[in-house]
This record gives sequence, structure tokens and C-alpha cells, in this order.
Amino acid sequence: MSRFWNPAVSLLSPYVPGEQPKIEQLIKLNTNENPYPPSPKAVSAMREALSGEGDALRRYPDPDGKMLKATIARRYVAYGIREEQVFVGNGSDEILAHTFVALLKQARPLHFPDMTYSFYPSYCRLYGIDFVTVALDADFVLRAEDYVSKDNVGAIIFPNPNAPTGCAIALPEIAAIARAHPDAPIVIDEAYVDFGAETAVALVNDHPNLLVVQTFSKSRSLAGLRVGFAVGDAALIEGLERVKNSFNSYPLDRVALAGATAAMEDEIWFEQTRQKVQASRERLAAGLSALGFETLPSKANFLFTRHPGYDALLLTRQLRERRILVRHFDQPRIRDFLRITIGTEAECEALLAALRQICQILQPQNFSTL
Amino acid sequence: MSRFWNPAVSLLSPYVPGEQPKIEQLIKLNTNENPYPPSPKAVSAMREALSGEGDALRRYPDPDGKMLKATIARRYVAYGIREEQVFVGNGSDEILAHTFVALLKQARPLHFPDMTYSFYPSYCRLYGIDFVTVALDADFVLRAEDYVSKDNVGAIIFPNPNAPTGCAIALPEIAAIARAHPDAPIVIDEAYVDFGAETAVALVNDHPNLLVVQTFSKSRSLAGLRVGFAVGDAALIEGLERVKNSFNSYPLDRVALAGATAAMEDEIWFEQTRQKVQASRERLAAGLSALGFETLPSKANFLFTRHPGYDALLLTRQLRERRILVRHFDQPRIRDFLRITIGTEAECEALLAALRQICQILQPQNFSTL
Repeated sequence: MSRFWNPAVSLLSPYVPGEQPKIEQLIKLNTNENPYPPSPKAVSAMREALSGEGDALRRYPDPDGKMLKATIARRYVAYGIREEQVFVGNGSDEILAHTFVALLKQARPLHFPDMTYSFYPSYCRLYGIDFVTVALDADFVLRAEDYVSKDNVGAIIFPNPNAPTGCAIALPEIAAIARAHPDAPIVIDEAYVDFGAETAVALVNDHPNLLVVQTFSKSRSLAGLRVGFAVGDAALIEGLERVKNSFNSYPLDRVALAGATAAMEDEIWFEQTRQKVQASRERLAAGLSALGFETLPSKANFLFTRHPGYDALLLTRQLRERRILVRHFDQPRIRDFLRITIGTEAECEALLAALRQICQILQPQNFSTL
Repeated sequence: MSRFWNPAVSLLSPYVPGEQPKIEQLIKLNTNENPYPPSPKAVSAMREALSGEGDALRRYPDPDGKMLKATIARRYVAYGIREEQVFVGNGSDEILAHTFVALLKQARPLHFPDMTYSFYPSYCRLYGIDFVTVALDADFVLRAEDYVSKDNVGAIIFPNPNAPTGCAIALPEIAAIARAHPDAPIVIDEAYVDFGAETAVALVNDHPNLLVVQTFSKSRSLAGLRVGFAVGDAALIEGLERVKNSFNSYPLDRVALAGATAAMEDEIWFEQTRQKVQASRERLAAGLSALGFETLPSKANFLFTRHPGYDALLLTRQLRERRILVRHFDQPRIRDFLRITIGTEAECEALLAALRQICQILQPQNFSTL
């Protein structure tokens, strides 16, 4: 606390990202990064942006990111998406921030799941947004009916697949929620959608209240480049643009614009990468099951899993001693779980070997929290 | 307007950046970009960030930008600046946005000049900040005494040198303002400081209410990379970090962090570049004077100039027909002026030649607004 702060600053609850330690030979399965590199075409495009002794970097980038928006619209042309229906930003986190102030701050409260991306409450505090959490069911699944039947809904946001559970719902359920609250903005945070779920971009032209947010960080292997986008009715996008242009004219640098555009165009690399991750996910889930773990059905690039005999925090620490990082959330309902990012085949094997060893060394009954 | 917007969105007044047209062979003197390329060491560092087939880009960047902060602190070690006194962001515009919400939103109004960076009122609308403008004097100079003597000051911000005038004030005047309002955050926006003004970083350890914001866009030729920083008392920086971590954990991508760090380390390139720009500025000012222009004394990489015989908007259009862009602000007090970015020597010569030709073709009395 400082007397120079806006008093509201001391009431904020800043988000805490997964750690990015500098440990040699680490197997890093804690922040849902892609184990495979980005498209070689994206890397070439970024090198090209630096060509001519970096002379282009003297100049401001396109404040509107028009080329990137056009490329994203083309990818979704089958759904009738036009360029003015696309918004781009400095990672999907920045887009979510603008979405919270532009669309999710309403007279009535915002609704989101009790177990979800932990940045949402941080945005709410930053912008003074009242929110209500809606409990996932006993299987940690988001039930559309729980949102359809709610009264006093100002807006709704949830990830699909949800984080940190990995569970997805189907498009008819999303459509039902959008139809039930036609005057409320409904935001689907699709950070993980490309690993097996269906995108609600298919629905936006039937539902003017529906906004879909995606990222280049996961399925396009560009977490280090900070690019995300949103697709929705042009009026929703205009609201985002007004907020963005009151905040920062140029959120995307020239290298990021070039890399993201080329990454979006490389459909073959994208397909290969996401299929490898999905295949590894199924093998890892089977391996965990063989060790006695119970894993939620995942459509994301991570698994949310628990062992009835072992404390999750203890497992996290034991894995860390073996230079394997996974994420543990010390929160009600989910503190029995580990969230494990899908790594390469070798990394998944190393994780299973480490867990096998840990389970052999430790007596299950000593560590149960159940 | 859309029924899905937070109603406050329709009251925003988004900032309008200078245009970035795609015209061949354009002489672009409208957005204060540096005419010289960035440090070759910065370009090498960015290439290095893409090496190994871009594999590092899979991973999130350092959310705290520690290496960049340490490099900036080292540059100001003579002033006793420590790493925890440095904040970094996605261009100084993003840093200013966070500063407005973290520090400049107070119970009493924010004060800034009537002629200044036109983004300030946009931030105020976004965050609901009451503001009061303080008139520059008849010579378009910011008088410290006008701020020292003000009552009911919640906070103060101004650029030094000011934009779009280019005029700077000296450090004792800034210190007097900071001393006069010891409980109010005082923010000095030093986007242009490296072209001849003195940095108030020298004052921050004597004034816990003083924050200095700088950018890599101008003197370091990296407008296309989007990196800025702020220096101040650790408590001010902590306030900014709390807001930033409630907004976006990773505002700077890996390429930007690498490039900015190397650019900050290359003192020789920095010195050469800024001295070339300053020398061109003095020659251009002399050339304009010979044509009858009246130019404000500039410590920035641009000149603010008017001709008693010619309408500024007409000159802007005539220059544009000759593929030379300068900026004109259609605002009270300053609509007689052109803001001209300092280009290369050849660009400055071309501008002078074009103005000479325009002044020969057009009769001054026909176009005077005086």
C-alpha cells in the first residue's frame, strides 16, 4: 500500500502465472505450452520482419493489424466471418481484459464457473465488476442448463474446454445458453479448443451476443509471441476496438503480426502438431490410469488428474525433485488434482516413469487426503 | 452503440494515431519515427530469439522482464536506480494506461497541459478520471509556476519535452512541482527526452511521488517493437505491477524483450543516432526560418512550426501531393502549426525544397488565417 496509489489498487487480486524457472534439463509440464515448435513459415516470416538491418522496426506497426485480421477471417470463411468481425490483441489475456471492460461489465452480474481460469476474478476486481460463480457438477463438468436457467444475468464467460479441468461442452449447449440470454454478452474463451473441442465461431453469425476468444499460444506454439484474437458480431468487435484505442494504439509489434499471420496460414503444420498432442494425451491418460490415477476426460493439451492414495501437493513436490514441473492449485474442490501439460512422447514417458517410482517409494495410506 | 456494450464504452474518446499509409516512395514525417535503423546488436539479439527453428517461442516469456529491467537499472546506476524501481510494458502507451489507473486516478482531479499528448483525455475517459487542463503560456511553453501554485491537485502528468510543441523544461522546475505537491503522483512522460532534454530519472530518488516514463520507439528506433519503461520509487512501481498483473501477465514477447535489452546496452549506437537527429533538427529549423516559418525551440525529434502567410492545413495537403506527410492538429491555439518529424538529411532537404516550391506557387495573402 502506498499513499500515491489509487485506493482501488490495494484491493486488486493480481493473477499469478505458472512459474517459469531457469532450471537445466527441466521437463516443464506446468503452463500448457506446446511441446512442438511453431510453424517454420511463421519463423521465416518473423526473420523477414527483421530483414534489411531491422529498418522496418523504426516504423510503428499497423495499429489495426489488418493483414492478420484478414487471414483469420479467411480461415473461418466457411462460417461467413468477415474482417470486421475479428479483433486481435497482445495475447488472449489482453483481449479478455478489454472484453471484461467493454462487454462483461453490465448492470447485472457476470456469471462464470466456480472452477475456471483464475484470471477472471482479477479482471473483475480491476474493473469493479460484480460476479457470481456457478458450480461445476460433481464430475467437474460445466452444465449448460445451470446457465440457461439463471436469472439476473448481465453476462457470461467460460472457457471451452474449461481450465483447469480440460472438459468441453458441445455447440448446441453453447447455443442454448446464448439463446436463453439474448441481451447478455456470452464470451467463450477457446484457448484450448484446437485440441479436440468444437469452436463456437460456427455460431457467432446466428448469435449477435456471442464472442469467441482464441490464442496463438497453445495450438500454434507461440506463447512467447503474445498474440490472440476474438471473433463475433461486428458491433461486439467495435466495442472492443473503442476500448483498445483508448488504451494502446499498437498492441502488436511488427514481428508478432508477421509471425501470427504466417502461423495462421500454415494449416498443415497446425494439423500435424495438434494431432500429435492429442495422440500423446490419450496415451498419457492410459498410462496414468494404469497407475491408479483418475483423470477427467480432456479435450485440451493438458490432463487434470488425481490419485486416491496420494496427496497432490506431495506428488507435485516429488516430481519437482525429479525436475518435472506440473501445476497444483491450492483451492477448494480441486486441491486433490494435478494439472499436467501434454509434453512430447519422451516427456510423457519420463513423467509416467517418475510417478511410478514415487508411487513405489511412498506408502499410499500415509499421504491420502481423502 | 450496441446494447451489448458496457454503457461507458459509448462515452469513450479513442485516440487517433497518425496515419500509416502504404504509399510508394513516401517521405513520412508525421509520426515522429526515427529516420535511422535500430542498433545492429538489437537486431542480432532478436534473430537469436528466433534461432533453433523458433523453438523458444513455444514458451511464455518472462512475465517480469527481469533481464530488461536489470539492464535499464544499470543504465541509470549513477542515479542509484535499482531493478525494483523499473517497470516495463508494451510501448509507453500501455505503461501510461496502467499509470492512469494505478496512480493518476485520485479523489482530486488530474492536471495536464491544454496542448499535449492527445491520448491523455482518452485514458481519462476510459478510467473515469476527472481532469483539469492548464494552459501553456503565450509562447506555448509549460510554466512550472502554473502547476506549483495550483490547489486541489490529485496528480499531474506532462510530457517533457512536451508534444506537439517540442519545448522542454529544466529539472529544477520539475523538482519544484514535485515538492509543491508531495502527496500527488507526478508523472513525466519522457518519450522525446533523449533528443536534448534532461531526464527526471535523476530526481526520482529524492521525490517518492515522481514517476518517469520512457519509450524505445523514438531514440532507439524501435517503434515497430512496442517497448517502454518507467522509473520511480519502488512503491509506485509496485502499484503499476499490481495493475499490470490484473490485466496481462506477459505484455512483452520474447523477441521484444531480447531486442530492447540489447538496444539499451548499445550506448554508442544510441549516441550516434540521437546526435545525427539533433544536428538535422537544427539545420531544418534554420532552413524553415529562411522560408519565413516561425518554429518553437525544440528538444525533441520534431519541429512545431507555422508560417504567418500560409494556412497550415493547406500546406499539409500540398506536401501530401508531393508525397511528404507531416501532421496537422485541427485544434484551437495550434491549428496554424505543422508538426514535422526530423527525417534523414535527404528527407529534410526534400521537405525544404517542397515548401520552397509551394511558397513560390501560392500567394501568401490568399491563404493566411491570421
